[in-house]
Amino acid sequence: MNQEHVEELLRFLRFPSISTDPEHKSDVAACAGWLQQKLTQIGLEAELHPTAGHPIVVARNVHREDRRTVLIYGHYDVQPVDPVALWTTPPFEPRIENGIIYARGSTDNKGQILAHVLGVGETLKEHGDLPVNLIFLIEGEEEVGSKHLEDFLILHRDELKCDVIAVSDTGMVAPGVPTLTYGLRGIAALELKVTGPDTDLHSGIFGGAVANPITILARLIALLHDHEERVAVPGFYDGVIPLEPWERRSWEKLPIGDAEIRQLTGVPALAGELGFSSLERIWARPTAEVNGIGGGFQGEGTKTVIAKEAFAKLTFRLVPGQDPETVMKAVRAYLLAQCPASVHLELKGGHAGEPYHTNPNSADGTAAQRALTQTFGKEVALIREGGSIPIVNTFRRVLEVETLLLGLALPDCRAHAPNENFPLENFFAGIRLNRLLLEELAR
Amino acid sequence: MNQEHVEELLRFLRFPSISTDPEHKSDVAACAGWLQQKLTQIGLEAELHPTAGHPIVVARNVHREDRRTVLIYGHYDVQPVDPVALWTTPPFEPRIENGIIYARGSTDNKGQILAHVLGVGETLKEHGDLPVNLIFLIEGEEEVGSKHLEDFLILHRDELKCDVIAVSDTGMVAPGVPTLTYGLRGIAALELKVTGPDTDLHSGIFGGAVANPITILARLIALLHDHEERVAVPGFYDGVIPLEPWERRSWEKLPIGDAEIRQLTGVPALAGELGFSSLERIWARPTAEVNGIGGGFQGEGTKTVIAKEAFAKLTFRLVPGQDPETVMKAVRAYLLAQCPASVHLELKGGHAGEPYHTNPNSADGTAAQRALTQTFGKEVALIREGGSIPIVNTFRRVLEVETLLLGLALPDCRAHAPNENFPLENFFAGIRLNRLLLEELAR
Repeated sequence: MNQEHVEELLRFLRFPSISTDPEHKSDVAACAGWLQQKLTQIGLEAELHPTAGHPIVVARNVHREDRRTVLIYGHYDVQPVDPVALWTTPPFEPRIENGIIYARGSTDNKGQILAHVLGVGETLKEHGDLPVNLIFLIEGEEEVGSKHLEDFLILHRDELKCDVIAVSDTGMVAPGVPTLTYGLRGIAALELKVTGPDTDLHSGIFGGAVANPITILARLIALLHDHEERVAVPGFYDGVIPLEPWERRSWEKLPIGDAEIRQLTGVPALAGELGFSSLERIWARPTAEVNGIGGGFQGEGTKTVIAKEAFAKLTFRLVPGQDPETVMKAVRAYLLAQCPASVHLELKGGHAGEPYHTNPNSADGTAAQRALTQTFGKEVALIREGGSIPIVNTFRRVLEVETLLLGLALPDCRAHAPNENFPLENFFAGIRLNRLLLEELAR
Repeated sequence: MNQEHVEELLRFLRFPSISTDPEHKSDVAACAGWLQQKLTQIGLEAELHPTAGHPIVVARNVHREDRRTVLIYGHYDVQPVDPVALWTTPPFEPRIENGIIYARGSTDNKGQILAHVLGVGETLKEHGDLPVNLIFLIEGEEEVGSKHLEDFLILHRDELKCDVIAVSDTGMVAPGVPTLTYGLRGIAALELKVTGPDTDLHSGIFGGAVANPITILARLIALLHDHEERVAVPGFYDGVIPLEPWERRSWEKLPIGDAEIRQLTGVPALAGELGFSSLERIWARPTAEVNGIGGGFQGEGTKTVIAKEAFAKLTFRLVPGQDPETVMKAVRAYLLAQCPASVHLELKGGHAGEPYHTNPNSADGTAAQRALTQTFGKEVALIREGGSIPIVNTFRRVLEVETLLLGLALPDCRAHAPNENFPLENFFAGIRLNRLLLEELAR
């Protein structure tokens, strides 16, 4: 174990690079600056590109016409840390325990992208060159929908021209099981605000004669699903590509299933859309989730008010065949139609990303499978994932290339949650994977 | 206008005597101390009785056996002030504008109880005595369910023996219209906590296969009412005493109705139980309200989590014929039966109070009507109210006397809400009312 590699990761993790929070703007910028320095230090030419949001870091080796070009994408921004009280140790003071590193961003995505950077560093140190033309593209807005990356890709289309893209921002089905992800869910965010009276009202003086905004909001949320846990929005499933028989068969055999998901999450019982297994529900079926809700008196004790307003933050996970814009139109129309005249309903769209689906057995797909097998010494699991990496669709549209998703996260890495973590074993596997992958893709 | 009376009210209002908040314990105590001093200063014998919660203030004149005894009850504690951002000026820095005083507690109940204190002060100053034996009983826990008052009444039953009780903690139907309230709703509070996973989960990695605690909580809230806006809990309406025809007829003629309630609240449209007018819904029908809700990510931007837990604070307003304990049993059973096995539901009961109903045309009732008519020069409106003053039932049970509810609050006084206010006109009317009332009750 290379201790200096671990130290570098610790440094990277100490930046509170929370992209969604304006108060952390300078922390995000400092993190980008550190990354540029690191890329320069390993022997690449690295640049910081400012955007209207957070900067994009691009690095490359000296390119030659007689070899293939590989772009490795990642992100250095992280999710917020609330509820911070549930962290065992502070989210930006990384802690190593039993070979596992705990910190916000450790798995999503700093640990994974830094593994690639350090893999390239090792190869350059040993051989003075790489087997491919390499481009690192590491952004700071993945957690807020990669707002400025598409414009950047369009503007720099020629410099970013490549044959294939590799991304490690997905998961492994189980420890030690190499995993190639060929499908991702998309996402569309929507915030609901229900407003009733001009001001908070005494629930004794007015209760019974006016609609309660919290109650109305709850009813709208309750209307999102039917009794089979299907999303009840008319047209929501239009175009959804059904699961293929080979997918259902091969997923049944994976070393992860209901028991593991129940254990990982700690829920009293699993739940979800009728007629699908848990993996199918997560990887291949769309969802409607409430990520946050608030309204009225949330303090200690009782306050007998009817709140003037209440809000909920929703995200919809979408699967191949669904288009975020079309789905959001249907959701908005449904919610507005269901909302009574006794309140105002305000809908505010948030970030959106298309679902992704590619062929895992293409030439580059099989090259990736070989690198994965060599890294871990095991047969590769071919899966889809439930998360969203909207940018892979943008790569396809703008750069006209497919993306290989070679994840290193474990199911209990708690991305986006308190006590996010990443095993050092996976970090070092990522470094090995990078070296083997570039060799395989060079052929 | 007696400017010194106004100054006294300002002093009283500056104490942030929020009884529900442990951080304000010493402010509540300081407020009680001030009140004791004030009562002593006007010529009464005043005592501060500590309780396990906040102190009770009791004051009396020299009692004589040949006259009736009147107990005047009020409270010096106030509601919390959230959301404090919606206050035009700070809640505990009283401001007078166009003859209206703005501060937390101005109407509920400091303005109203102090009017009685100052009325007694004026009579004592002018005549050296009162027409009745008087007891002031002013507590500091009305807003948290008068937790320690019942024990106090039982313990001091003999000293507090009286013929009738007067309370000014209710409302007038319109400015200048004297109002006698003969019915109050009861209340029962219940907090719901829905817990799912051990920790917040990434809604991409697990969304679809586990129940979302916020969604489940919303569904439980949606199940509280049926499509006619009746409370859907089986047995909820058991025993509810139906409205009498004279009540419906006389309330229709009051100078307050749908138009005024809509204007007072600012809601886009009124709503409520099918088959009842707005006044009937508020004064004579029980309700189920959500006073607060919270769960998941409530900050700026988006965070794609499935929250580990979500909570809602409910209160039920009850009407004559309903018993809080019986109702809460039914509500608990209903919610637990509706909750799926995919989450845990925790129910925590809060404060409770019975509904109240008395005869407005009893001897003391008509005495109060005469005092009200003389104070305001108008016919008295006989009404019920939607709020809860649980203690009036305790008075009946322990002291075996009826309570006269002679409210001075206007419909737009915003009790429990930001910018609570009280017209100085009503404050001075309250002082006059006290003097006339003691005379009428003395007969």
